[in-house]
Amino acid sequence: MRMTQPHLPQGTRDFSAAVVQKRQYIFQTIRSVFELYGFQPLETPAMENLDTLLGKYGDEGDQLIFRILNNGLSHPSKQVQAREGLEKILAGQSSKELTERALRYDLTIPFARYVAMNHAQLVMPFKRYQIQPVWRADRPQKGRYREFYQCDCDIVGSHSLLNEVELLNIYAAVFSRLGIEIDIYINHRSILAALAELCGGEALLSTITTAIDKLDKIGWEKVQEELSRGGLSATSIGLIQQYLELSGTNEEIMRALLQLTNQHPLAKAGSDDLNYLLSFGPWPAGVHVITNLSLARGLSYYTGTILEVKARKASMGSIGGGGRYDNLTGLFGLPNLPGVGISFGVDRIYDVMEQLDLFAAIPATETEVMFLHLGEQESLTAYRLMQQLRRENIRCEIYPEPVKMEKQLKYCDKRNIPYAIIIGNNEIEQGMVKIKNLRTGEQSTVPASQLSADLFR
Amino acid sequence: MRMTQPHLPQGTRDFSAAVVQKRQYIFQTIRSVFELYGFQPLETPAMENLDTLLGKYGDEGDQLIFRILNNGLSHPSKQVQAREGLEKILAGQSSKELTERALRYDLTIPFARYVAMNHAQLVMPFKRYQIQPVWRADRPQKGRYREFYQCDCDIVGSHSLLNEVELLNIYAAVFSRLGIEIDIYINHRSILAALAELCGGEALLSTITTAIDKLDKIGWEKVQEELSRGGLSATSIGLIQQYLELSGTNEEIMRALLQLTNQHPLAKAGSDDLNYLLSFGPWPAGVHVITNLSLARGLSYYTGTILEVKARKASMGSIGGGGRYDNLTGLFGLPNLPGVGISFGVDRIYDVMEQLDLFAAIPATETEVMFLHLGEQESLTAYRLMQQLRRENIRCEIYPEPVKMEKQLKYCDKRNIPYAIIIGNNEIEQGMVKIKNLRTGEQSTVPASQLSADLFR
Repeated sequence: MRMTQPHLPQGTRDFSAAVVQKRQYIFQTIRSVFELYGFQPLETPAMENLDTLLGKYGDEGDQLIFRILNNGLSHPSKQVQAREGLEKILAGQSSKELTERALRYDLTIPFARYVAMNHAQLVMPFKRYQIQPVWRADRPQKGRYREFYQCDCDIVGSHSLLNEVELLNIYAAVFSRLGIEIDIYINHRSILAALAELCGGEALLSTITTAIDKLDKIGWEKVQEELSRGGLSATSIGLIQQYLELSGTNEEIMRALLQLTNQHPLAKAGSDDLNYLLSFGPWPAGVHVITNLSLARGLSYYTGTILEVKARKASMGSIGGGGRYDNLTGLFGLPNLPGVGISFGVDRIYDVMEQLDLFAAIPATETEVMFLHLGEQESLTAYRLMQQLRRENIRCEIYPEPVKMEKQLKYCDKRNIPYAIIIGNNEIEQGMVKIKNLRTGEQSTVPASQLSADLFR
Repeated sequence: MRMTQPHLPQGTRDFSAAVVQKRQYIFQTIRSVFELYGFQPLETPAMENLDTLLGKYGDEGDQLIFRILNNGLSHPSKQVQAREGLEKILAGQSSKELTERALRYDLTIPFARYVAMNHAQLVMPFKRYQIQPVWRADRPQKGRYREFYQCDCDIVGSHSLLNEVELLNIYAAVFSRLGIEIDIYINHRSILAALAELCGGEALLSTITTAIDKLDKIGWEKVQEELSRGGLSATSIGLIQQYLELSGTNEEIMRALLQLTNQHPLAKAGSDDLNYLLSFGPWPAGVHVITNLSLARGLSYYTGTILEVKARKASMGSIGGGGRYDNLTGLFGLPNLPGVGISFGVDRIYDVMEQLDLFAAIPATETEVMFLHLGEQESLTAYRLMQQLRRENIRCEIYPEPVKMEKQLKYCDKRNIPYAIIIGNNEIEQGMVKIKNLRTGEQSTVPASQLSADLFR
C-alpha cells in the first residue's frame, strides 16, 4: 500500500536553505537599521483573544481572521454550548464557546493591545519594532500568501514631525543597504481634506480618496465615473482632475496646490508639514522623496503624513508604507496617544532583489570546507583537524561514511562547497593534508600543522 | 464608559525589548554553531494540514493540537456539513468539514513531511536546522507555555556514528559559547533492549524504560512497584536494580554492564557505539559526557543513541535532548531513511542563563547616544551630526520635541542611554558640541567637526 503524498496547506510555503538565508539577510538589514535609529524589539504571541482582533479590520477583515477551535469540546459539559456556538458562527457571528482565540492578522493591533496593557511601565515616546508572521484567510494567488511576515516600526507618544523624518531616513538607510533604488511618495491627510472641503465638505473625503487611490489601477475615466456615482458635481470633478494633474518639482507642486485651493488653511497646514520633511534632503544616493497628491493608502486610518515606497527599477507594487495616526490605543481604553509608523513588505522586497539580481553580494553562510572520509582511522585525524578549523570559525563538514570518493565529491558539488580536504594513509604518514580547490581543480599539499583559516579566506 | 482592559491568551507571552535581545542572543549563538557544522536552515509554515499531524503524537498529543476553524462556514452550502463536522468533533473524532488545518505541534513532523515531499531534490545526507515556535494546548503552568520555540538540528540519510559525534560537539560548542557548564548524558537503545531480553523479552522494553525514566522523579521504591505491576519477576527487578546501580567512570560502567549482562550481544553492540563516541574526548572545558544507563527519553521513538543535556550549576530539568531514529519519513510514504537529531530547550536555557547571571556579557543593541532637542533651529544641526554618527554605526536618537532638558535626561536615564549630546545656540555659534557622559556625569566640549564614533567606543 502506498501512502498518499503529504502536502502543504494552500497559500503557505516551506522555505529551504537558500531562501531562508536571503530572507534572513533582509530581516537582519532592517533589524540593524531599526536599532541604529533607537527602536526596541517587541514580540507578541501568534494567538490573540478573538475579541482583541474582531471589529478592528472592517467586516471583510473579520472574515479573513483564522479562528482557533477551543480544545476539550468533546467533554460532556461543553457539548451543548459548542452546538449553540456553531449556530452563532453559521449565522456569521462569533462564539467564545467554539473559538476564543485567533491568529494575529497584523502587527498593529497586537502592538496597540501591548501598549494599552503596559503603558504605565513604558518610557514615552515609545519606539518599537516588530518582525513576525501574520495570517490571513485570503484567497491565495501569485504573491499573496496566507502566512507572511510583517516588519513594522512605530513611535507612539509624540506629535513631532521629526519622527516622520526619522522614518524617511529609515527607509533611505534600509534600501540603500539592500541596494534598491526607491521613490518615497509623501502626502498629507490635511491636503486631501482641503480638496474635500472645496468639493462640498469633509464628508466627501472618503469617497474622493477611495476613488483617487485607484487612479494607477483603473485610470482617470473610471475614477471620474466613481466620483460621479459618489455624488460629486461636474465642477468638483473638474477641480479634482486639476488637483491630480499638478506636477513638477516638489516646490512647484506645493505652489500650484496652494494656488488651486486658494490658500485653503488645511492645504497650507499639510504643505507646511511636507515642506518641513523635504527640507531634510538631500537624501542618500538612490533615494527620491516625491510629493504625490493622489496617495491615500485607505486613509481612514491616517490623520497626518502618508508615506509609500516603490522600487524604481522593478515592476512591483508598493514595498513599504505608513503614516501618522491618532488614537490607535483608544480601541483598548487608552485614548489620545498619537503615533506614526511604517512597514516593510518583505515578500515583495525579496522579489525585487531577485528581479534586480541583488542577492549575489550577500555574505555566505554555507559550508566552506569538506573533509573527505577515507576510512575509519583516517577519519579520526580528519575530525581533529576539522575541529581546529571550526575553532577559527571556518564552516566545515566531514562526510559521515567512507563511501567512494566520487560520491563524496558529488556531494560537495551539489552543496556548492569550494574546498575539499583529503587525508589518506599517505598523508597521515607524512603529516600532510591535501587541499583541493573544487572550483579551479587546483590541488596543494600542506603540513597538517599549517592547516588554518588563512588558506580559505 | 471605560473599555475593558485587553489581555493575553492563557499560556502565551509578550516579549519586550530586554527579553527579545537575550533570546535573540541565544538563537543567534545556536544558529551560528549549526552553520559552523554545515547544517542548512529550513522554515515550515505555522499551519499544517490536520492529517499531517494527527496520529503522530499519541492520543494525548492529538488532544493538545490547536485546530484552526475553516473559514466561510456561514456560507449556506457549508452549514449542513459543518453541523455534521461538529458532531464528529464532539465524539472525539476529527472533521475536515470544520477544521482542515492545525498549528504545528513540534518541528520533527513538519521536517519529516518536508523530506517526504522533497527527497528527490535533497542532497543526502541532508543536514537541516530549524528554529521556530510550536503550539500546544497544554494546561499552562510555571515554565510551560502554549507557544514556545523549538530549536532542532537533524541529519537524515546516514547511519554513521560520526553524526552523533557532530551532535555532541554542537552541544559542546553552543553551551561553551553561552558559558553554561553541562553534563551530556548518553545511553543506547540496544543496552536497554539487552536488559529487557534478560528480564524476559523485548516486549518488556517499554514497561521497563517507562518506569526507569521516572527514577529521578519518583525514586526506586515507586519504580519497583511499577515494574512489579508491569509483570516483572522479583529476579528481574533485582537485575534492574543492579543495572541502575552501576556507577564509576564511563569505562567502569561499561565493563560492569557487560559483566552484569553476561556479554549480551545487544549490550555489547550498544556499548561499542557509546565507546566510539566517548573516544572523541576530551571535550571542551565545562563539557562532561557521561554514560547514564537509566536515560530513555520516552524511547519508543529512538532506535540507537539517546542524548540528554543538563546544566551543572542550575536547578533545571533537561535543556536539550535527542537521539537516533529510523523510518521517521515512513509515516509519509518514504521508508528506511535513518536519522539522528538533537533539540535545544530555549526557554529553559534562558532561565538557566538568568539564574547564573550569564547575560551580563552579551553585546548591547540599545541606543548609545541621545541628541537633546533644544529648539527647532538647534535640532537641525543636531540632526545632521546625528546622521554622521549613524553612518559610523553608532546607535543614536534625537528627542523629538523641545521639552525641558530635565525631561529629556529622564528619558535617557530610563532608557539607560550612556551619552547625551547637547547642542544649543552657544555651541552652534562656536561650532562646538557638548558631550555628557550620563554614567559619570562628566562633560566635555569638542569641535562639531570632530564628533565621531571614536568618542563613544
